[in-house]
Amino acid sequence: MNVDGRSYRTIWPHPDQEGVVQIIDQRQLPHRFVVENIRSVDEMATAIREMHVRGAPLIGAAAAWGLVLAAAAPGEADWRRSLTLAGDLLKATRPTAVNLAWAVERMLACARSCVTVAEAAARLRQEAQRICDEDVAACAAIGRHGLPLILEISTRKGGAPVNVLTHCNAGWLACVDHGTATAPIYAAHDRGLAVHVWVDETRPRNQGARLTAWELGRHGVPHTLVVDNAGGHLMQHGLVDLCLVGADRVTRGGDAANKIGTYLKALAAADNGVPFHVAVPASSIDWSLRDGLRDIPIESRAEDEVRWAEGLDVDGQVRSVRVCPAETTAANYAFDVTPARLITGFVTDRGCCPATEDGLLSLFPEQRTTGR
Amino acid sequence: MNVDGRSYRTIWPHPDQEGVVQIIDQRQLPHRFVVENIRSVDEMATAIREMHVRGAPLIGAAAAWGLVLAAAAPGEADWRRSLTLAGDLLKATRPTAVNLAWAVERMLACARSCVTVAEAAARLRQEAQRICDEDVAACAAIGRHGLPLILEISTRKGGAPVNVLTHCNAGWLACVDHGTATAPIYAAHDRGLAVHVWVDETRPRNQGARLTAWELGRHGVPHTLVVDNAGGHLMQHGLVDLCLVGADRVTRGGDAANKIGTYLKALAAADNGVPFHVAVPASSIDWSLRDGLRDIPIESRAEDEVRWAEGLDVDGQVRSVRVCPAETTAANYAFDVTPARLITGFVTDRGCCPATEDGLLSLFPEQRTTGR
Repeated sequence: MNVDGRSYRTIWPHPDQEGVVQIIDQRQLPHRFVVENIRSVDEMATAIREMHVRGAPLIGAAAAWGLVLAAAAPGEADWRRSLTLAGDLLKATRPTAVNLAWAVERMLACARSCVTVAEAAARLRQEAQRICDEDVAACAAIGRHGLPLILEISTRKGGAPVNVLTHCNAGWLACVDHGTATAPIYAAHDRGLAVHVWVDETRPRNQGARLTAWELGRHGVPHTLVVDNAGGHLMQHGLVDLCLVGADRVTRGGDAANKIGTYLKALAAADNGVPFHVAVPASSIDWSLRDGLRDIPIESRAEDEVRWAEGLDVDGQVRSVRVCPAETTAANYAFDVTPARLITGFVTDRGCCPATEDGLLSLFPEQRTTGR
Repeated sequence: MNVDGRSYRTIWPHPDQEGVVQIIDQRQLPHRFVVENIRSVDEMATAIREMHVRGAPLIGAAAAWGLVLAAAAPGEADWRRSLTLAGDLLKATRPTAVNLAWAVERMLACARSCVTVAEAAARLRQEAQRICDEDVAACAAIGRHGLPLILEISTRKGGAPVNVLTHCNAGWLACVDHGTATAPIYAAHDRGLAVHVWVDETRPRNQGARLTAWELGRHGVPHTLVVDNAGGHLMQHGLVDLCLVGADRVTRGGDAANKIGTYLKALAAADNGVPFHVAVPASSIDWSLRDGLRDIPIESRAEDEVRWAEGLDVDGQVRSVRVCPAETTAANYAFDVTPARLITGFVTDRGCCPATEDGLLSLFPEQRTTGR
């Protein structure tokens, strides 16, 4: 999407320099917009591990480009073994991200049929580009399929701004472009519909305040930051027309694991008759699970994420401050599960459906025989 | 309650110095425990306005002591006029706090019957002490009446810790002692029951992380800090036995206005069968209102409270950091209204009751004829 009028993806091969991949260093957002040159698989592994890039689809794309850099490294006697080791290195950076392993396996399978390292390097480069382009296409499809949800409300409101509430960052910064939850929003905005987004700050890591507010602002989409506590009040007072969030994992029964706090917003939406939609690419649906509350493991993260908050001080320095007493302990559950009964529907790259097994299967009939 | 083994209230006359009132400067918590000497009504007005003291009951008590200081000021030709002006000054510090005007009026009425300034000074001192003691007694009564809620769960769990979730600070720091929502918790802890409190951090001002975590810690009550997003997940997984919150205003119909985000926790409690109780003194019930969602005005506060977070940096300096892009705008609704249907019951200084008009009137039968 646009950053001050210029179109970007989150990752791309350097236009002039062979063997260099460029990324947006998201650790520096929203305070600095820094494009970083990645020159080796080691640097890419670091970038993934230390969250220069984050978001499941983007991590997959970054791993793919990491293998391109591994294949381009000169002086490798046993290039097949080097690629396998590079794949292991990349897979170990963020062990819970399914897209990471998936992208690595797909790239290695592609290399396996090649005879020379030169051939492998060329094929891997094509494949990485294909992985990126497929992700962009999937997100664009989510945007197309979700657009009517906003269009319908816009028409009903006579063109007055459609107020969308979102949680965390399921934006283009988490993908290669467009995002998932944001794709219908960008699609509506780009076709001239009036849209206004309520951005939950999303403690503890503040992905809403840091990333969603930044990317909406850079692309020119009107938005207002609120604390995570505010959504219920907004919905009680008719200030939200539609909730639109992403998901890290969706079960075949339609339960959705997403950033902690999503469930609270879904409860408020149900209590106030506000439609609550979850936007996901097909790759986020785990057909092997049915009961999300029982079967999706919830990651617990470092308690200091809760005890401290990061931002820019008045002197322009990025600093962390401890918000609680020194001796206070904290719990930090990273995700929660929103049961299907609270979800109005899914927006996927294949279309929209109700949040039921039958609904999902109507879009993905090939999954009828799996996971039963 | 205790601060590292020594018992404190939030406000008290200096034990040795006439004309000095002592408060805990709550702006410095949790990073520094500072007792401040207040020597004049002007200093007390500043302390209220700049939130050295906060919480409706404590603000009322502080205003009362402010008038004591006004009456003790020497060289006042027209002491009645001085007291009236002092009352006006105090009432203007935080115009929305009902306890403030109530305490000032009560003190001025007390002075009106006095003949000399010496008599007035003595009577006002007694009256301020009485206002404090009455608040302590009301909170202690809330503690006694709420204790069985915890005791019953403790018994059912065979003495295993009772997990209580609270939001914001309805603790002794908001009152003169005991607190409202915390009173049953302290009562249970002090009688040796195992209690563990989930403390919502309560963005944007972090009263949970700063004040509730501090006061529970100083008194020795086990607790864990969580982000405001976490409560739903905790309740889904059986990790909360009881929600206990305060309220700024309760309608005769049983709707409760409290810190923004309370409604979201009440929704999660209802969805998971967790009892949700609101602890309030009689003075917080507004018998003139019935429909809280329609009739309770919700204060909007400065957007920078959302855009910035305050805490202690690694060098031990209290700093604010901006968590969002410089140009991002924010909305900052301070309270929300939890409808009576989501409230299991009220814990008041007169006893417990269901969250209905009939329930409240059963405790306050003298209100049957008001507000109809």
